[in-house]
Amino acid sequence: MNRLDALKSIRCVLTRTTHPGNIGGAARALKTMGLESLYLVAPREFPSADADARAAGAADLLRNASVCASLEEALTGTTFAIGCTARRRELSHPVVDARHAAVELLDAARGGEVALVFGPEASGLTNAELGACQRLATIDADPAYGSLNLACAVQVFAYEIRMALELPAARAESAGAPATHEQLEAFYRHFEEVALAIGYLDAERPGLMMQRIRRLFARARPEREEINLLRGMLKSAASVRARK
Amino acid sequence: MNRLDALKSIRCVLTRTTHPGNIGGAARALKTMGLESLYLVAPREFPSADADARAAGAADLLRNASVCASLEEALTGTTFAIGCTARRRELSHPVVDARHAAVELLDAARGGEVALVFGPEASGLTNAELGACQRLATIDADPAYGSLNLACAVQVFAYEIRMALELPAARAESAGAPATHEQLEAFYRHFEEVALAIGYLDAERPGLMMQRIRRLFARARPEREEINLLRGMLKSAASVRARK
Repeated sequence: MNRLDALKSIRCVLTRTTHPGNIGGAARALKTMGLESLYLVAPREFPSADADARAAGAADLLRNASVCASLEEALTGTTFAIGCTARRRELSHPVVDARHAAVELLDAARGGEVALVFGPEASGLTNAELGACQRLATIDADPAYGSLNLACAVQVFAYEIRMALELPAARAESAGAPATHEQLEAFYRHFEEVALAIGYLDAERPGLMMQRIRRLFARARPEREEINLLRGMLKSAASVRARK
Repeated sequence: MNRLDALKSIRCVLTRTTHPGNIGGAARALKTMGLESLYLVAPREFPSADADARAAGAADLLRNASVCASLEEALTGTTFAIGCTARRRELSHPVVDARHAAVELLDAARGGEVALVFGPEASGLTNAELGACQRLATIDADPAYGSLNLACAVQVFAYEIRMALELPAARAESAGAPATHEQLEAFYRHFEEVALAIGYLDAERPGLMMQRIRRLFARARPEREEINLLRGMLKSAASVRARK
């Protein structure tokens, strides 16, 4: 695998972007670092003359951008997603800094499609959106004013990914194929169904437990075979319950 | 010295900026990383509503910005300046990457005022402007399209400076006071005068030699006392010539 090939497996997902100029600025930021794949989830305005103007020489990224209705759709086929957030508080997932996130993302990109996900300018990603990611990342900033412009935040992450190209690959060649986003989500749904069916999960308050389960498996980053194994186990548990 | 105090000694100098929006974007980028000193050399338009809009919460940096007529003026009082350039070719000074430049700049900022200098959007710094800096730095980018937006480039450097805060200080406490920009420039003028006076320098083509001399001393980063010593030597050389 060519050293630069991994960059092709990295998609940048901008969700619900308010200012089209920032979409153009993000496209330019990506292209300067050799990244080329842009996904837009429900942008307020796109295509747009502002986006074109700010994109400068990266008009091709805008032309080829995938516009999606949901984050779910944008993450289809990915095996790893990092959600970028300015908040460190009240988050259930582990938060790493941009430098470490870049190393991990690039490493995962050597084994499958991966995503770097950014929220809207003012509010950032929702907890549900962050929950769809396996890792959360933040840019170290001044605590007194840590509000980076969206395109500038994309620039920093893209820059760190390019810098990480120089590091030796950490991914073990023998590792199995990682589970995709769809496989993981199907597993979580299955888990919740069975947990309810066997009376383990309280139907009144399912939220917190599933959040903990997501957190656990986000850390573990299961392979496809492992997900199959777990789902076999869930199936057996449900059928025992049915036979009772 | 407080760990964060060095940030106060770092000025960001934007020369001949064409788009006022980029001045605002740069101000925001600086503030998110805890930098606060902005110098503007002959901006095309400033103050400006575009600058204000892009600055977001960094309006104070625009309000306090020093507007200068020349780079010379903006570098007054500095002991070290890094010129940022997208070009690696045809440059006489050594070019380091942004990460190493940030470490060096922060280190120098612990001993005096320092500057990080950016050129106009389209053309970058001139060779004469780069020559006024002791070091040149570039952001590693895709060779096929390495044109970062100015505010994004400022963001990457400012981010690297903040990341460098975590590293141990390299500056030896016993080091003498570094020469200021004015002392160095006066030395270069003195050197050239004497070189001409003693017939060592060809008045027809003085450019190349002085460029080499600048390169040599930019590497050496002389202390004030060393500049005094060298100027004493120049004075003696000139007086020998006068006595002949």
